[in-house]
Amino acid sequence: MTSPATRDAAVRPTLDPADPVLAVIGGGQLARMMAQAAVALGVPLRLLAEGPDVSAAQVVPDTLVGDYRDLDVLRKIAEGCSVVTFDHEHVPTEHLHVLAEEGHACRPGPQALVHAQDKGVMRARLQQLGVPCPRNAVVADAASVERFAESVGGFPVVLKTTRGGYDGKGVWVVEGAADCGPVFETAHRTGVEILAEEKVDFRRELSALVARSPSGQVAAYPVVESVQSDGICWEVIAPAPDLDPELAVRAQQIAMDVASELDVTGILAVELFETVDGRVLVNELAMRPHNTGHWSIDGAVTSQFENHLRAVLDLPLGNPETRAAWTVMVNILGGPADRPVGQLYDGYPHVFARDPRLKVHLYGKSLRPGRKVGHVTAYGDDLEDAVERARHAAAWFRGDLEEEGE
Amino acid sequence: MTSPATRDAAVRPTLDPADPVLAVIGGGQLARMMAQAAVALGVPLRLLAEGPDVSAAQVVPDTLVGDYRDLDVLRKIAEGCSVVTFDHEHVPTEHLHVLAEEGHACRPGPQALVHAQDKGVMRARLQQLGVPCPRNAVVADAASVERFAESVGGFPVVLKTTRGGYDGKGVWVVEGAADCGPVFETAHRTGVEILAEEKVDFRRELSALVARSPSGQVAAYPVVESVQSDGICWEVIAPAPDLDPELAVRAQQIAMDVASELDVTGILAVELFETVDGRVLVNELAMRPHNTGHWSIDGAVTSQFENHLRAVLDLPLGNPETRAAWTVMVNILGGPADRPVGQLYDGYPHVFARDPRLKVHLYGKSLRPGRKVGHVTAYGDDLEDAVERARHAAAWFRGDLEEEGE
Repeated sequence: MTSPATRDAAVRPTLDPADPVLAVIGGGQLARMMAQAAVALGVPLRLLAEGPDVSAAQVVPDTLVGDYRDLDVLRKIAEGCSVVTFDHEHVPTEHLHVLAEEGHACRPGPQALVHAQDKGVMRARLQQLGVPCPRNAVVADAASVERFAESVGGFPVVLKTTRGGYDGKGVWVVEGAADCGPVFETAHRTGVEILAEEKVDFRRELSALVARSPSGQVAAYPVVESVQSDGICWEVIAPAPDLDPELAVRAQQIAMDVASELDVTGILAVELFETVDGRVLVNELAMRPHNTGHWSIDGAVTSQFENHLRAVLDLPLGNPETRAAWTVMVNILGGPADRPVGQLYDGYPHVFARDPRLKVHLYGKSLRPGRKVGHVTAYGDDLEDAVERARHAAAWFRGDLEEEGE
Repeated sequence: MTSPATRDAAVRPTLDPADPVLAVIGGGQLARMMAQAAVALGVPLRLLAEGPDVSAAQVVPDTLVGDYRDLDVLRKIAEGCSVVTFDHEHVPTEHLHVLAEEGHACRPGPQALVHAQDKGVMRARLQQLGVPCPRNAVVADAASVERFAESVGGFPVVLKTTRGGYDGKGVWVVEGAADCGPVFETAHRTGVEILAEEKVDFRRELSALVARSPSGQVAAYPVVESVQSDGICWEVIAPAPDLDPELAVRAQQIAMDVASELDVTGILAVELFETVDGRVLVNELAMRPHNTGHWSIDGAVTSQFENHLRAVLDLPLGNPETRAAWTVMVNILGGPADRPVGQLYDGYPHVFARDPRLKVHLYGKSLRPGRKVGHVTAYGDDLEDAVERARHAAAWFRGDLEEEGE
């Protein structure tokens, strides 16, 4: 009856000194979903966020706002933490080397992470390891793109910035040397290199996720099918339907080999092309929980987020098997126009009433064009039914259903 | 590269004004697990915590520290929130009436909640509704206990404080009038009433959980078996093994009827005795997520925590069905002695290595005698196997395995 209520700046939990604290760099939805898994494990997180309102900062009390490109900020967040891990791959590699030299356990470490940061380094290393990749070359100008095109049977070819691209940004499909001008202008202005890759004739995109601990334990998730649109993951089906079991094992083996050879700790996502002639080729690597693994929160015994935490803390990994015959994840993406605030929450009455088995994950973001603001998951014995349920819910949240004629 | 890192007192998310904010009174593990469900739903929580370090305050940035018995503190937390809900039943009923009169949506409301706060009120109302209960009477002294004992076939009888008891506190089994002295001394000193109940000859304890929304939608979880020790829930098996289907329906019907008649919103847990002669009698009511529903996080399509949030926000309820044939939850309770700090986390390597399918929930509490610090859940097709896995893990976390000869 006495203590006055204070919205106290000092309301920040005092930690048990025996508990490990995990630093997470980056405050996006991946950090938010790591935080959710950390609540269950009882592991305290310390977050470095881009701003006080970003997705993960909304749910992590011990949040520091600062710039992940600033070494002193990184030192401050790492201090007193047992392990440093990441929501994204944009922390400068050289800063991570300094942190590691100063005794901080960065997981994944900079020697591994550089392969997810720099596509040129990644391609060179994977080829050295004999991992199947699209043919590729670092190119300096339109003439070298033309030579590369000739070597792979002609245009179109894919150009990518070696660093900084994501979700379809920093990727161009060029039909001839004349298209290359703007790409190299951008590259020269920003100082990034350009990688040329053959345009693979693929049947579909797959993703093989593994979790790997510093002790070397690896848990491999079932290979999933990933449907992309404009370079953004749109829909994931777990496991990938009608996938040749030998090809599935091959994809998992590639992911396990890459994780071990590159000494990855935490989640490694290997995005693959399944070619029309029945091969798998590595498209991209990510060393963090990945959009193609979000299905695992509701669809696997152990989610990729829990296994990421267990892996970077060097705890034994959880079972990655599915809990349902089919699990379908569809992203909720902002449409072509801004939507009014409250749009997302207002989607609940309909989607929940229509489908009491639906699982919804909203990231605390407002709808903006092309922005990932949440995802929905449906699972069950019937693939078509799960696909329909998940697509309908995501479209409803986006406000797209009228356009689709429903 | 410029913004200095500041562990800023003002790192508190700015909310979208269109989003509902949910106030939760009480910072225990139930609020912590509500917070976990709220992360997925994207619903912002505002917490009233007993201290800055309590279980839920560790994971809710928007935490106010204050006394839930102080009406002004309650007003402050409720201000600007769409709905007020509860981690426990100890908020004074009269304060809740004031909040409700001032226009705050308290869910459950004080007219409902009083039945979980006051066992005398609860018994009177349930009898009025024709809900089967142990025979009972409010008693004023040892002589009235003796008269009550005669009316139910003799001692022993159970005495309970009508208010303030939980987890075995405020409950006594008396063998004769001579045992009643200390009970009434305590009662007179603290001003609580004493309820006498017949000691039911029960086969086991069951629990029937339902979620109910203000609109009147009800979702009924499967009836579970609850194993108690010294009045504390120890182990839960979902669904209750070998339960007569008619009795299961009867228990669910009681829970649904009580929820509707009492206008409960959120989770209602009805703890029941299954008598040796094949009846179910209501033992206790709780109007919040309940220990006998923790299995649902990993074992049901929709957890009790998610359904509590959906219910109090008046969103359509999620499917409460099981995801596995058997789900077994065992509490991690502090043993007879204090354990060193770090004991809990140090349990991870063994339990995770032994059982990659195990789910662990730690509440951010240190081990103290009799304290609930976490729970483990195992599920699968084989009940004995799930029981063994969950018991082993909980015993390991408690540090009890040597005593058990393993």
